[in-house]
Amino acid sequence: MAERFVVQTDAPVSSDADIPDGLLASFWRYERALMADDVAELDRLFAPGPSTMRGDAGGLLVGHDAISAFRKGRGGAPKRRIARVEVRVIDADSALIVAVLAPAIGGAGQQTQLWRRVGEGWQITAAHVSGPTPAVDPRVWRIAGTPLVRPTASGRLDGETVAVKDLFAIQGHRIGGGVPDYLAAARASHITAAAVASLLAEGAAITGIAQTDEFAYSIAGANPHYGTPPNAMVPGALPGGSSSGPATAVASGQVTIALATDTAGSIRVPASYQGLWGLRPTHGAVPVDGVLPLAPSFDTVGWLTRTGALLERVATGQLPPSAELPRARVTSSAVLAELDDATAEAFTEGIERMVADGRVERPSQVGLPDLAEVHAAFRTVQAAEAWREHGEFLTAHPQAVSGAVSERFRAAAAITDTEERRARDAVARFRVELETALDGAVLMLPAAASVAPQTTAGAAEVDRIRTATLRITCLAGILGAPSVAAPAFSVAGAPLGIALVGPRGSDASLVAGARTLVDDRV
Amino acid sequence: MAERFVVQTDAPVSSDADIPDGLLASFWRYERALMADDVAELDRLFAPGPSTMRGDAGGLLVGHDAISAFRKGRGGAPKRRIARVEVRVIDADSALIVAVLAPAIGGAGQQTQLWRRVGEGWQITAAHVSGPTPAVDPRVWRIAGTPLVRPTASGRLDGETVAVKDLFAIQGHRIGGGVPDYLAAARASHITAAAVASLLAEGAAITGIAQTDEFAYSIAGANPHYGTPPNAMVPGALPGGSSSGPATAVASGQVTIALATDTAGSIRVPASYQGLWGLRPTHGAVPVDGVLPLAPSFDTVGWLTRTGALLERVATGQLPPSAELPRARVTSSAVLAELDDATAEAFTEGIERMVADGRVERPSQVGLPDLAEVHAAFRTVQAAEAWREHGEFLTAHPQAVSGAVSERFRAAAAITDTEERRARDAVARFRVELETALDGAVLMLPAAASVAPQTTAGAAEVDRIRTATLRITCLAGILGAPSVAAPAFSVAGAPLGIALVGPRGSDASLVAGARTLVDDRV
Repeated sequence: MAERFVVQTDAPVSSDADIPDGLLASFWRYERALMADDVAELDRLFAPGPSTMRGDAGGLLVGHDAISAFRKGRGGAPKRRIARVEVRVIDADSALIVAVLAPAIGGAGQQTQLWRRVGEGWQITAAHVSGPTPAVDPRVWRIAGTPLVRPTASGRLDGETVAVKDLFAIQGHRIGGGVPDYLAAARASHITAAAVASLLAEGAAITGIAQTDEFAYSIAGANPHYGTPPNAMVPGALPGGSSSGPATAVASGQVTIALATDTAGSIRVPASYQGLWGLRPTHGAVPVDGVLPLAPSFDTVGWLTRTGALLERVATGQLPPSAELPRARVTSSAVLAELDDATAEAFTEGIERMVADGRVERPSQVGLPDLAEVHAAFRTVQAAEAWREHGEFLTAHPQAVSGAVSERFRAAAAITDTEERRARDAVARFRVELETALDGAVLMLPAAASVAPQTTAGAAEVDRIRTATLRITCLAGILGAPSVAAPAFSVAGAPLGIALVGPRGSDASLVAGARTLVDDRV
Repeated sequence: MAERFVVQTDAPVSSDADIPDGLLASFWRYERALMADDVAELDRLFAPGPSTMRGDAGGLLVGHDAISAFRKGRGGAPKRRIARVEVRVIDADSALIVAVLAPAIGGAGQQTQLWRRVGEGWQITAAHVSGPTPAVDPRVWRIAGTPLVRPTASGRLDGETVAVKDLFAIQGHRIGGGVPDYLAAARASHITAAAVASLLAEGAAITGIAQTDEFAYSIAGANPHYGTPPNAMVPGALPGGSSSGPATAVASGQVTIALATDTAGSIRVPASYQGLWGLRPTHGAVPVDGVLPLAPSFDTVGWLTRTGALLERVATGQLPPSAELPRARVTSSAVLAELDDATAEAFTEGIERMVADGRVERPSQVGLPDLAEVHAAFRTVQAAEAWREHGEFLTAHPQAVSGAVSERFRAAAAITDTEERRARDAVARFRVELETALDGAVLMLPAAASVAPQTTAGAAEVDRIRTATLRITCLAGILGAPSVAAPAFSVAGAPLGIALVGPRGSDASLVAGARTLVDDRV
C-alpha cells in the first residue's frame, strides 16, 4: 500500500481582498483529496453538470462526467506540495485561486481554479493544471536529440524533422521494436536503413527514435512497457498504432515527419485517430532494408505528416515517379456494415459534402468480396510470417510481449503449413477479385472503422474495433496497393480519416488526389 | 519582416449563459494583439496593478509590470489558431474564457483567462497558458533517452538518473562542449569518462547529455547557439552556469543527479541560482579522464542534486573516504563587500538564524587576502590554460564562440608567459595565505554574490555580477579545496545558496556538515 502523503497547508497565501469564508478550507480539502486519490471527494468538490471544465497537457475535458471518468482512470495525481497560493476574489460567491505547485520529483507547476459558492460550501467550476515535463516522454520516444542525426545533404526536406519508428536501423543505435527484452539483447547497428538514409539525404534531420506497439503487431497504439503515447487530438484516447510514437510526435508538433511502417494499417490508423496524413506506399516501393520485419508479404515503409502538402513532397522525393491517377472513384456499401452508426454517417455525409462541393464526382458502388473472409486470409498469412520472424526470440523470451499481442503470437505459432498455404491461395484469389472489381478505379474508404477509442476501453471492445478496422485496411495489403489517409471527417470532435486506395505505383499522385478532397489547415 | 499572421475568429464558442456585451470582441482583440506582438495593446488588455497574474511553463508572474517586462523580452508568442472557446459567465462583469489552442507547429494548448469589465471595456486579470512541449528541450539537452545509457551494475544509486554535462566522453557519443562547431568536428568517443562509468557502476542511469556554456567558460548559463536553459525556480532568470543544462534538468525534476564540472564556480553558481545542492570536490579527487578541460589547474568534476541526502550518498560512493570535518567555522566580512545589500542581508541574517537555532556556533571572522587580487591571479592562470586547451580550435574556427566568452578567449590569447608565471606565483602565495588564515577551519560563504539575474540583464550588469561572484567562488579553486553549495537562503523569493569550503579531502563530511545547516524539503 502506498504511504500516506501528508499535505502541508502552510503555503503562503496572498489575496487582493478578504478571502470569503470557507474558501481556503475547501481548497485544502481538495488538495488532501487529490493527494489521497479520493475520487468520490474530488467528484463532490467539482461542480456537477455539463459546464465544468478541467484542462491539462492531455487536453480539455468538459462536463463533470468526463472529468470523473478521467480521475477514475489515472490512478492518482503526481505527489506535490503547494508552494504558494494567490487568491483573487471576484465577488462574495466567486474566486480564482492560483497555486504554484512544487512537485515531489522537482520543478514547478501551476493550478488555476475557479471556485463558486454552493450553499454552505464551495466547488470548482473550472481548473487548468500544468506541471513539469520529462526530459523525453518515454511513452513517445526511446531516444531523442537536437537532432539525433544530422542531414547528410541538402534537398527538398531541408528543415524538416523526423521521428523514426523503433523498427529502423540507425547506425550506432539499437532497434527496440517496442519490446524491452528485445532491446536489451540488441546490438548497436552498423548500418542505417535505406528509408532513413534517403530522408537524411534530402535534408531532413532525425529527431529521435519513437515508440511502437510490441513488434508492431497491433493497431491500438498501446504499450505496457513504455506507456501508451497520448492521442494529441483526443484527450484520453488511444493514439492508434502500431506507429503510435511517431504519430503522436507529429500530431503534437514535435516533428514534421514520421517514418513508419504499415503492414495491416499501422500508418493509416494512427493518422485517422490523430487527424494526420499518412501514406502506405505501393508494396516494395520503399526498400525495407534495415527494417525489423513483421510480415514481409504485407510490410511497407511510409510516412505521416500534419499536412498533405508535406506528405506529397515526401512521397515525390522518396518514391519512384508516380503513375497518373485514374479518374474513376468507387466506394462500397459493404464497408459501411463494419462501421458504427456515427462513423458511417460521418463518412457518408462527408463524401456527399465533397460531391456537393464539386471536389469529386459521386463515386460508383462496387461489389467487394466478403470482408470477413478477406481479412481472415490476410490475418493468417500475416500471423504465419510474424511467427517466422519472431518465434525464435519469443520462444526464448516468452514473457517479452503481453496482452493481445502475446495472444496473437500464441495463435500465430499454432498455424499449420496447410492453413498458411490455403490462406495464401485465398489472398491471391481475393487480390484478383479486388482488382477485377476496382477495374483501375480509386477506392474511397474510411481510414478506420471508428474514431480513436478511449484508453479505458475494455480488451473486448478494443478487439471488436480492431477487427472492424482491419477488414477495411487489409484491402490495400491484399492489393499491394498504395493507400493514403487524410483528415477529412470528425465524429463528436474526434478526427476520422478518409482513405484512398489507388493502383500500384500511383503513390504521389494518390496523395495529390487526396489533396483535392481535403484542404490543409493553415 | 515577418509575414502578418491573420487571426481567424471563426472558432466555435460555447457558453453556459448569455455572453456579456463586448467580452468576445475584447477576447479577439487580445488574440490579434498577441499574434501581432503588439505589446502596448497587450499591456492595455491586461489589468493594471500588482494583482494581475500570468503563468506558463516558465512560472507565475504577478503584477502588471512583471508581465509587461516578460512580453517585451520574449519577442512574440508562438503562432496559433484558436480551435475552440468555452465561456463561463460568472456575473455581468466577470467571465472565465478557456480557449483550446491549435499551435501552428502542431499539437494543442490551453489558455485560461479571467476577464473583468472595466468601464466600457474588458481586461484580463489572470491568465494561465500551456502549450505543446518539444521532444527534448534544446536549451537543456543535446540528446536524451529513456535512458540513454543503462547502469552497468546495481548499487547505492539504483533508480537515480543523471544529466551529463556535454564535456564528458560517453562511448558512441560525441562531446559538444556547448559549441556547435566543435560538435560538428567531433567524433563519437570510444571511451566513457571515468566519472560517468563510476555512476553507472553504482546503479545510476544516464538520461542524457545536457548543455553547457561555451567551453564551460562562463558562470551565467547563457548559450546563444542552443538557447539559454530556463531557471526552473525563478521565472525569466538565468540558470547559472556553466553547468546550466544539467542544473536545470535537476531543478525541473527531469533527473535526480547532474554530473558536472566546476573550474571557477560552475557547479556552485547554478546550484545557488536554482535552489540545488552542489559539490565541487577536492581538486583531483574525481578523475578528469575523458573530460574536455578548461583550465586543468582548477578543473574539478562534481555533482548537483535536489537534496543533501542524495548529494551525500553520491559523494560517499564516488569519492575516497572523507577526512573528518574540523569543528571550527569561520567567515569573512570582506566577502560582504562583494554583495548587494539584499544578498548581504540574506546571508548575514541567515547565518544569525542558524546560530540562533543552535545549528552552528557563531563563526569567527577571519582576514582574507584582497579578493580582487586573488581573483585577478586566478583568472589569469585560468585564461592562459583555457587558451592552451582551445586556442588551436578557436584560431581555426574564430566564429565558434560568441559574446563574453569570445572576449574572454581573445583576452586569454594575449596573456604573455611572464604574466602567466607571475599569476601562478600569486596563486601559490594566496593559497598559503588562505590556508594560514583558515587554519583548518570551515569557511562559510554565500554560494554566489547575488541571486540569479534576469535573462534581460545587460552585458555590463551580468559582468559585474560575474566578477563579484568569482571573487568569492575562486577561493576554493585557489585552495584546491572542496566546496558544497546548499539552498539555505532566499532574496525576494529567489534562492541563494550557502557555500562551505572545507579542508582538502573532507568532501563527503563537508556535505554532511552542510546538512546540519540546511534541511531537505520533503
